[in-house]
Amino acid sequence: MLLSAIQKANEGHVVAYGDDVYTRDAVNAIKKHFSEEAEVFFVLTGTGANVLGLASLTESYHAVICADTAHINADECGAPEKFCNCKLLALPSADGKLTPDAVSQHLHGFGFEHHVQPKVISISQPTEMGTVYSPGEIRALSDLAKQYKMFLHMDGARLANAAVSLNLDFKSFTAHAGVDVLSFGGTKNGMLFGESVIFFRPELAENFRYMRKQGMQLASKMRYISAQFITYLNSDIWRENANHANAMAKLLLEKITGLPDIHVTQKVEANAIFVIVPQKIIKPLQDKYFFYVWDEARCEVRWMTSFDTSTADIEGFTDCLRLLLS
Amino acid sequence: MLLSAIQKANEGHVVAYGDDVYTRDAVNAIKKHFSEEAEVFFVLTGTGANVLGLASLTESYHAVICADTAHINADECGAPEKFCNCKLLALPSADGKLTPDAVSQHLHGFGFEHHVQPKVISISQPTEMGTVYSPGEIRALSDLAKQYKMFLHMDGARLANAAVSLNLDFKSFTAHAGVDVLSFGGTKNGMLFGESVIFFRPELAENFRYMRKQGMQLASKMRYISAQFITYLNSDIWRENANHANAMAKLLLEKITGLPDIHVTQKVEANAIFVIVPQKIIKPLQDKYFFYVWDEARCEVRWMTSFDTSTADIEGFTDCLRLLLS
Amino acid sequence: MLLSAIQKANEGHVVAYGDDVYTRDAVNAIKKHFSEEAEVFFVLTGTGANVLGLASLTESYHAVICADTAHINADECGAPEKFCNCKLLALPSADGKLTPDAVSQHLHGFGFEHHVQPKVISISQPTEMGTVYSPGEIRALSDLAKQYKMFLHMDGARLANAAVSLNLDFKSFTAHAGVDVLSFGGTKNGMLFGESVIFFRPELAENFRYMRKQGMQLASKMRYISAQFITYLNSDIWRENANHANAMAKLLLEKITGLPDIHVTQKVEANAIFVIVPQKIIKPLQDKYFFYVWDEARCEVRWMTSFDTSTADIEGFTDCLRLLLS
Amino acid sequence: MLLSAIQKANEGHVVAYGDDVYTRDAVNAIKKHFSEEAEVFFVLTGTGANVLGLASLTESYHAVICADTAHINADECGAPEKFCNCKLLALPSADGKLTPDAVSQHLHGFGFEHHVQPKVISISQPTEMGTVYSPGEIRALSDLAKQYKMFLHMDGARLANAAVSLNLDFKSFTAHAGVDVLSFGGTKNGMLFGESVIFFRPELAENFRYMRKQGMQLASKMRYISAQFITYLNSDIWRENANHANAMAKLLLEKITGLPDIHVTQKVEANAIFVIVPQKIIKPLQDKYFFYVWDEARCEVRWMTSFDTSTADIEGFTDCLRLLLS
Repeated sequence: MLLSAIQKANEGHVVAYGDDVYTRDAVNAIKKHFSEEAEVFFVLTGTGANVLGLASLTESYHAVICADTAHINADECGAPEKFCNCKLLALPSADGKLTPDAVSQHLHGFGFEHHVQPKVISISQPTEMGTVYSPGEIRALSDLAKQYKMFLHMDGARLANAAVSLNLDFKSFTAHAGVDVLSFGGTKNGMLFGESVIFFRPELAENFRYMRKQGMQLASKMRYISAQFITYLNSDIWRENANHANAMAKLLLEKITGLPDIHVTQKVEANAIFVIVPQKIIKPLQDKYFFYVWDEARCEVRWMTSFDTSTADIEGFTDCLRLLLS
Repeated sequence: MLLSAIQKANEGHVVAYGDDVYTRDAVNAIKKHFSEEAEVFFVLTGTGANVLGLASLTESYHAVICADTAHINADECGAPEKFCNCKLLALPSADGKLTPDAVSQHLHGFGFEHHVQPKVISISQPTEMGTVYSPGEIRALSDLAKQYKMFLHMDGARLANAAVSLNLDFKSFTAHAGVDVLSFGGTKNGMLFGESVIFFRPELAENFRYMRKQGMQLASKMRYISAQFITYLNSDIWRENANHANAMAKLLLEKITGLPDIHVTQKVEANAIFVIVPQKIIKPLQDKYFFYVWDEARCEVRWMTSFDTSTADIEGFTDCLRLLLS
Repeated sequence: MLLSAIQKANEGHVVAYGDDVYTRDAVNAIKKHFSEEAEVFFVLTGTGANVLGLASLTESYHAVICADTAHINADECGAPEKFCNCKLLALPSADGKLTPDAVSQHLHGFGFEHHVQPKVISISQPTEMGTVYSPGEIRALSDLAKQYKMFLHMDGARLANAAVSLNLDFKSFTAHAGVDVLSFGGTKNGMLFGESVIFFRPELAENFRYMRKQGMQLASKMRYISAQFITYLNSDIWRENANHANAMAKLLLEKITGLPDIHVTQKVEANAIFVIVPQKIIKPLQDKYFFYVWDEARCEVRWMTSFDTSTADIEGFTDCLRLLLS
Repeated sequence: MLLSAIQKANEGHVVAYGDDVYTRDAVNAIKKHFSEEAEVFFVLTGTGANVLGLASLTESYHAVICADTAHINADECGAPEKFCNCKLLALPSADGKLTPDAVSQHLHGFGFEHHVQPKVISISQPTEMGTVYSPGEIRALSDLAKQYKMFLHMDGARLANAAVSLNLDFKSFTAHAGVDVLSFGGTKNGMLFGESVIFFRPELAENFRYMRKQGMQLASKMRYISAQFITYLNSDIWRENANHANAMAKLLLEKITGLPDIHVTQKVEANAIFVIVPQKIIKPLQDKYFFYVWDEARCEVRWMTSFDTSTADIEGFTDCLRLLLS
């Protein structure tokens, strides 16, 4: 269906760089789901969405507070430091979440020129550990940020998985929970490519179009991203895909529960399962299935399910796993 | 056809970030056309291809010599300065080309710490002015670069238009003419999205994958770019599309030749026509057709043709033009 | 006398990083000469003063318009691009000055995301060519800047030489002529080291202390800079030194007038003389006297006089020159 | 004496920017103390020395591993991220030291493009916690670095205090212990201003002069730094000053030992003492003496002694302290 959206957008001439009817409709679709006041920009990669969103909130002498497992800290090859030129203060966090208590310990040195100035709290929803923030937890971090004239940024590369996990609409835990800038991704939930940056305070977006161009993230044929977002959001694709991915994670969890020497280390609230497994099975399992070793020392691995994981995939995987464990 | 390529790549699971069979085949297709020794990387935008290519050749205290009309200088919102942190030395050039003579005047201050150190000559093929370098002209610039331990970079966002204009294969005026790093684009000649960076000296590519990721240009579902490049290069699409675009430019040139108050300012060697027109017709013409005013003071405008410009488009355009001129 | 100032500051303990009585007094001395509303910061090098001043006015997608001979463009090894990450638009200028007409030709593309956004006009007073702007010329550039919501920056590394040339106090051609941010130097007119950045609109200085620290320009023992500025400005040293340097330039001009094959190329309004000389005399003259060749192709050289140039120096130099010419 | 050195350098003309006899002699003095193979550069601030030294070792996709208390991480307002554009991996460390074990846990992800690539281990000697690395501890970190094709950088802003603490010459724990690049400071041990960057592998210094200029750290009247370094190193000033500072710390330690509610938290090996004190005495003590609160939550403060701390200062301080504690 997303491919047909592209196919349809392929017909006829439209102006480049986003000044087209597809992009206008896609922006409206996002506004409907998130906030009528939002300013919306499409970009090409998840890293691009995060880094440019942070760039709109920071000067080089600022600091961004995040979990040490955050994608911006651990998986973007230093792109935030390169583009924003500022420091990430990465806090240890067992479940991937930040809390007001943990953040508060780093809220000092304001006005002291030798210290970077904390300016942004950045959270991932769901977290990299597969856990999901409640709206109340997000609001508490937003309140803390406001108290210090800071901003709350959310990496929502997998936001749909959080929405179906919470059984809430997008608004409830973004615009209404005090998020200032959101990376809202499509690629990890079924789109071919395409991400977005959503500003809930329009004044923050004032110069974003220059940052996007300078950040090499302005798609000339933007309509191919926009057309996908229209279909993704105006139909129920976003929900069905995420629901399915989360359900497959639950199924996998169910299947592995009770297996010997398998220890689940995180709550399974979205589409990721973290488990400690016997070291000897990791390589043979990786030969058949692609997954990351999260913590080599602990033999902790991460298994992700997705919109296109089938029940048969889960069964094949657990059969293989059971064999290796026996 | 490019869309069907995407459609086909959409079936089945593949590993993300380029470690897939489509990407391997696309790389091979590019090697066949350009050089078996080349190192090839796919990226998402033309600006990304140019900036990351230059980043692989420069340190921040270097300078990149280019024409003042070059896309990297005039149309990328300062992305090279932002990402490479170095200076562009933009030389005036009537036809968009650099010459050894013009470049040589800026080849001084080597070893003098107060001056940026010239390191790259960057040319566009075709140029922004629609002119095309001959292999000999490129070779002369490459020889000059080598003499000063500098590099030759080529922005080939519209490279296919140059190839059909010269009636040469890609090799003849890139690898064989002494180009070191090439941006080879697909989007402007029919692809939905997707560009590439080609290194003709593999040692220059050693750390490029970190730069690409940090530069926010690593596509997670890279197969959708790769699949297009395979079809684009293994069929004759690249040639047909470019041939058509150039032919439409010739047709347009023919149609406007002899019209009153229309002065063509550049040789028409690819798919761009530059003309000085009466000021009063610019706005009404823009109401019907999209084009850029190149030089407001001179009333010089740029008309581009493309792979999907039809003869009817040209006729409609020239009819409209004739009417406005009368 | 400046050394005794340092010596005196060397006695007793004071707090580091500028929170000391010397620095307070030096700031007040500058305010007295320039503007009571000014915000004043001391830094360590002229490049530091220029680059940090520009950084306080720019985002990376902005452009700074300057003469191509400007120190920021030609003599700082790309420091503005490295630290501000933005583009310099360097305009050709025969006498080193910018004019509203020349600048205006680059004031377009506002709001167009593919173009850098012009934000600062930066001038040098005196210019690198030894010419001096009148207050009216500066005001005209400031008015133009204001019209486009841009800023006027002045590189005043040799500002005292301009003041004595114009026979005006500092205020008349800085604060009162619409300058927004000024680099005010001491090193080139007799101080051992020490420069300053002066903001005439205090709101622009709000975050400057973080930029200065992050820019590696915060002196821990700032009192040694401050003490020099106090003596420099509260006595007449600044004026006497500059007067002397300018007078020596006039004397040199007088002595060389009428010499064969010597062509003065610029008005001599401060302490620099630009002359075209026979090529064969350049090397032998450089063996005895240090000076830069400004334009190798034209055999144009720059001769600077300074606070410690003596009449005997001038005579020795012209004797040598006469000999070489004969 | 350092002031007289400046005074002497003030006489006569010399060429600017370091091409003078004072600078040649100062470089030789440093070579004599450190290594005849060293390449030596003078800069203006400690932050400048650290950041430029790191810049010569890193690309933006690299990571620098340091203690979380390191000056580069905690006290330079993000200057390394701004100038090197790379990530600091800041490890918790109770005594301010890194160990091979602690570092090793971060030596993974090599070749994986999503991760920053570890490239430098940076240590402070003495550490920010007033502890001193033995030559063996330094060598072990250097060996680890070599094993991974990484570099060992040392922040020696207070290096003289480490030398007298270890009772070793500078060579023994720098060049001979496997340090690659060293910041060697003068300001904190009595110089008016002036720091240096010392490369023990000359090939690493190849382009450093451009980085220094672009980094705004090239002093035009360099002789005033050089003259101080000559006197500082060719006499015994460096040793006497550091000896005195360390002795004053020992004296202070002695005086406070046994005082109620005073808990010394770190070994006193150089010129810093870390103590936990009752919260109520901090403010009144700060009213009379300048010092930093290191950890507000724990009421831990840092007391520094220096080359100009007198026995009377120590006695006055401890009297005041005793009074406040009673």
